[in-house]
Amino acid sequence: MKINGTQYRTIWLKEGGPATLQAIDQRFLPHEFHIEDMRTVEEVARAIREMHLRGAPLIGSAAAYGMYLALASPPEEVTNIWEYISQTAQLLMDTRPTAVNLAYAVGRVLAAIEKEDDVAKIPGIALQEAHKITEESVEHCRLIGEHGLEIIKDISKKKKGKTVNILTHCNAGWLACIDYGTATAPIYAAHDAGIDVHVWVDETRPRNQGAHLTAFELLHHGVPHTVITDNTGGHLMQHGMVDLVLVGSDRTTRRGDVANKIGTYLKALAAKDNEVPFYVALPSTSFDFGLRDGIKEIPIEERNPDEVSYVHGWFNGKIYKVRISPQDSQAANYAFDVTPARLVTGLITERGACRATERGISKLFPEAK
Amino acid sequence: MKINGTQYRTIWLKEGGPATLQAIDQRFLPHEFHIEDMRTVEEVARAIREMHLRGAPLIGSAAAYGMYLALASPPEEVTNIWEYISQTAQLLMDTRPTAVNLAYAVGRVLAAIEKEDDVAKIPGIALQEAHKITEESVEHCRLIGEHGLEIIKDISKKKKGKTVNILTHCNAGWLACIDYGTATAPIYAAHDAGIDVHVWVDETRPRNQGAHLTAFELLHHGVPHTVITDNTGGHLMQHGMVDLVLVGSDRTTRRGDVANKIGTYLKALAAKDNEVPFYVALPSTSFDFGLRDGIKEIPIEERNPDEVSYVHGWFNGKIYKVRISPQDSQAANYAFDVTPARLVTGLITERGACRATERGISKLFPEAK
Repeated sequence: MKINGTQYRTIWLKEGGPATLQAIDQRFLPHEFHIEDMRTVEEVARAIREMHLRGAPLIGSAAAYGMYLALASPPEEVTNIWEYISQTAQLLMDTRPTAVNLAYAVGRVLAAIEKEDDVAKIPGIALQEAHKITEESVEHCRLIGEHGLEIIKDISKKKKGKTVNILTHCNAGWLACIDYGTATAPIYAAHDAGIDVHVWVDETRPRNQGAHLTAFELLHHGVPHTVITDNTGGHLMQHGMVDLVLVGSDRTTRRGDVANKIGTYLKALAAKDNEVPFYVALPSTSFDFGLRDGIKEIPIEERNPDEVSYVHGWFNGKIYKVRISPQDSQAANYAFDVTPARLVTGLITERGACRATERGISKLFPEAK
Repeated sequence: MKINGTQYRTIWLKEGGPATLQAIDQRFLPHEFHIEDMRTVEEVARAIREMHLRGAPLIGSAAAYGMYLALASPPEEVTNIWEYISQTAQLLMDTRPTAVNLAYAVGRVLAAIEKEDDVAKIPGIALQEAHKITEESVEHCRLIGEHGLEIIKDISKKKKGKTVNILTHCNAGWLACIDYGTATAPIYAAHDAGIDVHVWVDETRPRNQGAHLTAFELLHHGVPHTVITDNTGGHLMQHGMVDLVLVGSDRTTRRGDVANKIGTYLKALAAKDNEVPFYVALPSTSFDFGLRDGIKEIPIEERNPDEVSYVHGWFNGKIYKVRISPQDSQAANYAFDVTPARLVTGLITERGACRATERGISKLFPEAK
């Protein structure tokens, strides 16, 4: 996707020189555009943990490349390479607990290298697998865009070409992926196909990924949008101002319970109450077919309460972190919630759309045991 | 209520000197404590419009005192006093469209002075009525506290004395009233009665009245509380971490539809979905018996979008207004939403608690036509 007219992905391997992973450092958007260099797996782990990069598909790719960096230059003191590999995998998987893509991507790299007897070849194999995961992820998002486009087309037809108003929460955009995005892919596809779309962008406290990132993406792609507080969606739906809710997912169970950014559940309730279709766009890598009851089984990350007590913003050419609550008031920071499948109209995956039921999902993904 | 151990109300007439209304200027809380002097009705209107003071009961009192200030020193060019009074009333009622307390308080002052033939006596009568409205408001809040206390007591008993977790949205505290608060009155009463209560404080974007004001109040009264983002309540309710939702109201219709701070409706949906009792605390002055369907009939104020695009906070001893969304992204700022009566467990008024139905309300308020 484009930033100021230049084509970017969110993550890539630097050409030439020692092995270096480069990624857009999202902490400074929309106010500043920084690219971060990562040369070690520790740097990658920190970038994931401290959310220099975030989004389920993106952190999967980053972790896969992290495995490669670890293998490209293991510390000299390492004697047992397989023990080192196992520790490295754990380090990466422990960075964020909720998204399943970390385990998926690291697991794929492990599976690829485990088959190799020649230790010298392992870094090359890890790199190849990381590239493969990344390219597949791009293709998944492109296909999600194609399938989701049909849903937006239908709404546009029913509205006789009038503006289709789509509400999204957090950033399931290309910045959360490698390219296209998950929830945004159908929006970009619709906009590019000449359909009149307008996006209500939930600012998405505490980290404001909606206001910081989704608005930034839409702006650079020229998609009309309006930033709103997370409190606003229900009112808009009551007044017929939302035609479709479209969000991403960090982990979805075999029966269709959806873990996504905290607050998603509230929008799903409002959508149900007002008969607004509520779709979740996700690549197959965000399914966790091993789980059924999302509310009971998906671990919800608790992050630093300072993300709630403080807000980052721009003043006079500088980024400030300002405190909003009293110094002595404590805060709590649950990063995700789970939307039960009963509130989800459908899932949009790279294989097509399906109902958020065990049956619907298993029709598209018969390999899910 | 107390600030740093000193007893305050939110608004009072200054003793001695020319007629001066004084109020806590809430724009600087919790970081700075300012008292504003208002000598003219224009200053009062601006303070209401720009939210130096806010909260349905408080702006009612302020408007009543504003009528007095206008009458105490009318501009010299005024020839028709009754025309001037009517224009002044309109000026005050136009400051905020959603809360009904403005019309109520201004209406009462008008009714009181209309009976008086001696124009010289009018200012005194207006002042007397403003005082009366204010004292009644304090008493209403105290009684709401008594009635609401019973509900909290019951929950505490059922939980065998374990902590009662109460979620509140925005600030329906004493800062929104003259004293005690509406939604907070039962909380203070329970805390003072030795019941173990803990409050989840929604920060309440865009203006963060929860993080700024409710947290500040609870802190100064010593009530345990935790600030959360507006996105969090649903997750907490899914996990049994909320025993009661308690909010205020800016206008409630005869059948129990509740206009309150934007986002209240989302919490009501989550409460319903998780069988958590959802109560609205309001004085009779916040009823609008002339309306039935709140979603269709209550006007919803749209405020400056900058309140969404920017956040006020504290950094290094100063208050900053920092921008969070991209410079070129537009924003929308709906200040209230309407929670349909079907989602409301009950209303707590100065006359007791009732169901949020036409029948329930008319039992307590038979005078409502």
